[in-house]
Amino acid sequence: MPESERPLDALNNARNKKIIVELKNGKQLIGKLKAFDIHINVVLDDTEEREAGEIKRKLGTTFVRGDTIILISPQ
Amino acid sequence: MPESERPLDALNNARNKKIIVELKNGKQLIGKLKAFDIHINVVLDDTEEREAGEIKRKLGTTFVRGDTIILISPQ
Amino acid sequence: MPESERPLDALNNARNKKIIVELKNGKQLIGKLKAFDIHINVVLDDTEEREAGEIKRKLGTTFVRGDTIILISPQ
Amino acid sequence: MPESERPLDALNNARNKKIIVELKNGKQLIGKLKAFDIHINVVLDDTEEREAGEIKRKLGTTFVRGDTIILISPQ
Amino acid sequence: MPESERPLDALNNARNKKIIVELKNGKQLIGKLKAFDIHINVVLDDTEEREAGEIKRKLGTTFVRGDTIILISPQ
Amino acid sequence: MPESERPLDALNNARNKKIIVELKNGKQLIGKLKAFDIHINVVLDDTEEREAGEIKRKLGTTFVRGDTIILISPQ
Amino acid sequence: MPESERPLDALNNARNKKIIVELKNGKQLIGKLKAFDIHINVVLDDTEEREAGEIKRKLGTTFVRGDTIILISPQ
Repeated sequence: MPESERPLDALNNARNKKIIVELKNGKQLIGKLKAFDIHINVVLDDTEEREAGEIKRKLGTTFVRGDTIILISPQ
Repeated sequence: MPESERPLDALNNARNKKIIVELKNGKQLIGKLKAFDIHINVVLDDTEEREAGEIKRKLGTTFVRGDTIILISPQ
Repeated sequence: MPESERPLDALNNARNKKIIVELKNGKQLIGKLKAFDIHINVVLDDTEEREAGEIKRKLGTTFVRGDTIILISPQ
Repeated sequence: MPESERPLDALNNARNKKIIVELKNGKQLIGKLKAFDIHINVVLDDTEEREAGEIKRKLGTTFVRGDTIILISPQ
Repeated sequence: MPESERPLDALNNARNKKIIVELKNGKQLIGKLKAFDIHINVVLDDTEEREAGEIKRKLGTTFVRGDTIILISPQ
Repeated sequence: MPESERPLDALNNARNKKIIVELKNGKQLIGKLKAFDIHINVVLDDTEEREAGEIKRKLGTTFVRGDTIILISPQ
Repeated sequence: MPESERPLDALNNARNKKIIVELKNGKQLIGKLKAFDIHINVVLDDTEEREAGEIKRKLGTTFVRGDTIILISPQ
């Protein structure tokens, strides 16, 4: 990994992979990363919402507004 | 879906379709997506407000300010 | 409604009509929409403030700062 | 009032008049509007702070930061 | 006071005078205004921190970040 | 350290080193700093999430949105 | 002190001196100021975290994100 790597490169590497998106409201979204932009708005496919480890809802394709996101991690 | 897809493309695909808009105050708006912009301000038609799964209000056409939105998902 | 409609067009259509403005503090303002801008700052005439469905105050002409607004809906 | 009126015009009309400024912390400032800018920073003269309808303090000339303001209404 | 006065003029008039700075966390800083900028970042000299009317701390020269400020008033 | 050193230089010096990232929600992420940008978005490798001193989760590579970060400190 | 002094000059005068940084979460960081920028991001050396007057942690070099800071004061 070169010195000049930028944070968005890590999101680019996660495209089409399953990721966890942790939200400021304490919930987690798990889904396949389809798209993102510089505001860290993301689009997930086959999204599940989890809270305290439990699946709460299946949401299909989901647009998540970047300013509600704490962290994103490939599973 | 090409590598270069952007998050707003997912909103564009949802135009005139029924979507769920989840708000930072814990409420949900369900309606037909009529318009959106880069701030994720959205306009819904035939809007219903739900809280804890129950319909609270019918709102007709509704302008929603983008910075109050957590996620948007087609139903 | 053409594909390219923007959210602010919906506010423009509501000019001089009675609207509900829902605020982040849980209150509602009902009045006639006189002006708005791209920050969603709005000016209402003959404004009433409601909380939990009850009229709390009559405020006449009222300038509302956009960043306190959740949604706007014509009545 | 012409179609193209902007929200700041309403503040301009309120210059040198007594206004209520409602803050995000639940307090109200009442004073004469002396100046404002596009951030909705305002300066009041002869300012009184009220909470729950009661005068809490007299503050004289007061600069109020725009991002703490919910609404402004001429009395 | 001319029609075109701007809010920052009021801060300029308060330079080298004792002012109250009220913060979003409910505390007050009292000190002599030495400097400010368009973000309403301010520098005070001989600063006292008060809470509920009582002096809590003496802080000397203090830089206050503008986005934590509700209002500024000369004493 | 020259007078003109900038805060991001400190992050640059921490590249590929183990750092603590403290979040606004009270949690800590510990990992190797791989990338950062001017928004203080960071990417960590071999990330552990800690709360009240205890390891809660292992997260691997993690993208952290800058506006959720309080401080960053090399261990 | 000339009329035209700017707030960042006060931070420049505090370079390499021990300062208190008060955070929005109620904690204080004490350390030597090594760097700052226009966002008020700061870097401290030999940092101690205090809460309610007590030392909680020693953190060494610490990058602090500007938007978490209430005030900065040389000790």
